[in-house]
Order: sequence, then C-alpha cells, then structure tokens
Amino acid sequence: MDQLLILGRLTNKAMNERLILVTNDDGYDSKGIAAAIEVARSFGRVVVVAPEETQSGKSQAITMYEPLFLRKVREEEHVEVYAFSGTPVDCVKMAFDHLLNDQQVDLVISGINHGSNSAVNVLYSGTMGAAIEGSFYGCPAIGLSLTDHAADADFEASILWGKRIVGDILTHDVELPLCLNVNIPIGKIEEIKGMRLCRQNRGYWREEFFRHEDPRGREYYWLTGEFVNTEPEAEDTDEWALAHGYIAVVPVQVDLTDYRQLQKLDTILK
Amino acid sequence: MDQLLILGRLTNKAMNERLILVTNDDGYDSKGIAAAIEVARSFGRVVVVAPEETQSGKSQAITMYEPLFLRKVREEEHVEVYAFSGTPVDCVKMAFDHLLNDQQVDLVISGINHGSNSAVNVLYSGTMGAAIEGSFYGCPAIGLSLTDHAADADFEASILWGKRIVGDILTHDVELPLCLNVNIPIGKIEEIKGMRLCRQNRGYWREEFFRHEDPRGREYYWLTGEFVNTEPEAEDTDEWALAHGYIAVVPVQVDLTDYRQLQKLDTILK
Repeated sequence: MDQLLILGRLTNKAMNERLILVTNDDGYDSKGIAAAIEVARSFGRVVVVAPEETQSGKSQAITMYEPLFLRKVREEEHVEVYAFSGTPVDCVKMAFDHLLNDQQVDLVISGINHGSNSAVNVLYSGTMGAAIEGSFYGCPAIGLSLTDHAADADFEASILWGKRIVGDILTHDVELPLCLNVNIPIGKIEEIKGMRLCRQNRGYWREEFFRHEDPRGREYYWLTGEFVNTEPEAEDTDEWALAHGYIAVVPVQVDLTDYRQLQKLDTILK
Repeated sequence: MDQLLILGRLTNKAMNERLILVTNDDGYDSKGIAAAIEVARSFGRVVVVAPEETQSGKSQAITMYEPLFLRKVREEEHVEVYAFSGTPVDCVKMAFDHLLNDQQVDLVISGINHGSNSAVNVLYSGTMGAAIEGSFYGCPAIGLSLTDHAADADFEASILWGKRIVGDILTHDVELPLCLNVNIPIGKIEEIKGMRLCRQNRGYWREEFFRHEDPRGREYYWLTGEFVNTEPEAEDTDEWALAHGYIAVVPVQVDLTDYRQLQKLDTILK
C-alpha cells in the first residue's frame, strides 16, 4: 500500500498531536530502532526510551535490585531519544510512569528486532516483553521483528509494512488492550506475499550447551539451541506464515490461566 | 493432611525411582529453596540447579551473550546441589539439556519464592519463568511462592501444603503440559483456610521511580511500585483467594494468542 494513502486516512487525530513511544531490546543505537523511528515519525511525535546496551532474551524482566540511569541522547525535530540502563520493560515503565507521566501516549512500537520473535520466542523476547508492558498503559502496542539477526539487516520491507500496520491500527477503533506480535520474513518488498493473522505456534526449544575452557582452565557453558516446530503443517500459525513468505501477526494477551486444566484439576487438587 | 497419608498414596512409582528438579530465583542458598528441597525429598531423589545469586524479576529471561559457570555445591543423601551463574530459565535448561540429559525427571519445583507471584506477577517472576520452562520438558512443574519477602520468612505452612499439592500431582494421571502457579498466604498452618483453584487476576502495576543523586551527583532511579487490583471482588481470582486466607493455585499455559482479537482484527488488518 502506498504510504501517502495511509497518511491520507489519518483523519481522527492530527499528525502533530500524536505521541508514539518507541523502544526495543537491541539498544538505542541499533539499526532496527532507527527503522522503528522511521515508521513512527510518519504518524506523530516520537519519544524513544531504549536500553543503553543489548537486552536480547530479557523477556519481561524488571530491574529490582539496582539503580538505573537515564540519559538524553539527542533531540531533533519531533524525535527525542533517551537511553536507559535497564531492561526493555524498565524502559517502558520509565517512559509511562515518569518521563511522559502527564502526556497521552497513542501507541507503543517495540523493535524493529534483529531476529524472529515468533512462536514461543514471544516468552523470551525483550522486544515483546516491552510491547506487552506497553499494552498495560491503555494504548495499542506493536512489537515488530525481522527474521534476520544481522546488525546490518535490510529493514526496507519491514518499514513499509510497519507503516501499513501502524496506520491500520491508528485509524480504526480498536478494542484495548491490544498487543501485536508482528514478524516479518527476510526479503525484498516484492518478495513478501502479504500479511496473515495467526495464532502462536506450539513448538519449543531444545538447547545444547556449547562447552569450553576459559584461558584459566575453568569450564564454561554457552547457550545455543534449536527450535522444534511440532506442527509445521498448521497453516494458522506464525511459523507457517513466515516459512511461506508472509508477515505473521499474532495478537497477544497475558492471562496465562490454563482454563482447560482448571476444570481437570478440580478432581485432583481438593 | 498428614504427611504419612500422602506418602502412603505414592504407589505408582517407588520413592527412590523418582527424580525431582528443584530451582528458584532467590539463589541456591535461600531459605525458600531449603523449604522446596524439604518438600521434594519426601517424594524422591532431588537435584537442585539454582542461580548463584538472586534473580528476582528475571521473568523468562535467558542468557545469550555471556558464558555461564556451573558449580557443584554439595552432595548428601538423595540431594545434589548445583549453583549456576545464569537466570532461573538457564538453570532449567542446564539441568534438562545437559546435566540430567539421560535421566527421566518426574517433576520440577521452583521456589519456594520469598514473595507473591500471583496475578500479573507471573509474567515478571523468575520463579514462574523457571516453572514454565520446566513444563516444556514433559513433566509437571510447580512454582511455589509465599507472600512474604523476608529472608527469614516462616515456610512451615508452605512446606506442609507444598507436600500435599506435590503428592496430589504425583499420584494422579495428570494431563501434560501442566504448570501450576501456587501462592501461599503468610500465616501459621492453622490460619490457612484451604486451597482454591483460581484464574489469574487482571490487575497491573503502576510504578514510581524513587529518584535520588549518587555520591558523585549523578541522578539515579530505582523501581518501586504499587499493584492495582482492578477486580478485588472477583472470587475466582488468585488475589481474592490470598486476600481471604486461601492458597491460590492457578494452572498456567503459554499460548499468548489473543483469540478474541484475532477475530476482531480480521476487518482491520487486511
């Protein structure tokens, strides 16, 4: 979709009245967050609060036992950038509960992550931890991830589709809470087949620990692993969409209650 | 319930054939993990793999960019204790994918946590991160938490009820995956009114950042906050159970897909 078309539809709130919070887990100066800022600035004023350093795999972690430091990195037209020494979730809390305390935030964008956050990765992902946290503050939140870990990954298609999705969310009356886990396959714009609404794939990770000795003879372990896709044929999952050239959009909620087990356990735990 | 009664029911597997993995997020030498070991050793052989240091609030975080170190702390009759330099989830992965690779684990116990993990705390909790991870490995997993942050908290009632719940799970044919978030209110054994199967309360946290200057004049922030219970009257929630003197048991699952939004978004994201 043409970007001008999207902008033409943004009638419910003037551009300069919108405030968008951008964060990520790769750090405030990653290429991916620059791409997220490019998406966000098409729709309003942007405040970035992002980690000083990479926080990949930090999930929904919060920093309880250490002081945290906030630093204003730069301010340019309609974009303010802060680096915060905490986790992605700390960044979101800092933004909403302190920095932007008296302002209405219209949207949170987390990303664009260098690497996929599909399937069970949503649980380990700092990107999605921040997006989920954002959705607790009364506005839609979107996590954007590109299935390419490279520091110099090509975000062109991600930016185009990111603008389209953000435009769709901002111009409709969506029901809150709303949190989207958006994963974009590697590829040029013309290679991406479209976008699919999906459920989370049920696969899991099996790890191998890379095992070696440090220079002083002490054995160390380094986490590595392989994703096991337990349902590769299920066409309604995010993994299927990505494997077939589609962008996967999974709406995410945080009631972890296993309602099925709740009934079964009634006869076991008495 | 009398402990002997519980043990009398454990007919489906001999005591010494059972293997129970114990972990936590407060560290391998906390008072709470000693309580969890006491629960576990009533039912079989125990292997502990727990963090070297406190990992509270670490959620489902994994360590991707650092080497990790494993240390055998001690071995006594039927109990081996290892300290691992990673997160609670790293500990579970280390146990299943390396240390106990060739052994069948019958149960994972995470805790007993010093502090509540009810409601949305399940998302931030390292205790529950580890329990959830444990449930990915084909055995039941139970997170146990006492609503008392004190390092010298009284775990007597928690141990008694922990044994009862573990006994119930091990002596029934439960359907997997099974992960329980068990929260126990502060109180003497006779003060606890019983156990309730619950759903996760829908409240959230609002933070305040404690703000101060370090000795060199640099401003720092320290996360603090308050839980907002949006449904204090809902009798089917974990928060209600705890507030009324009951142990709250919430079965937990990890498909975060928001199926309601999946339908609604069909007309918005096209």
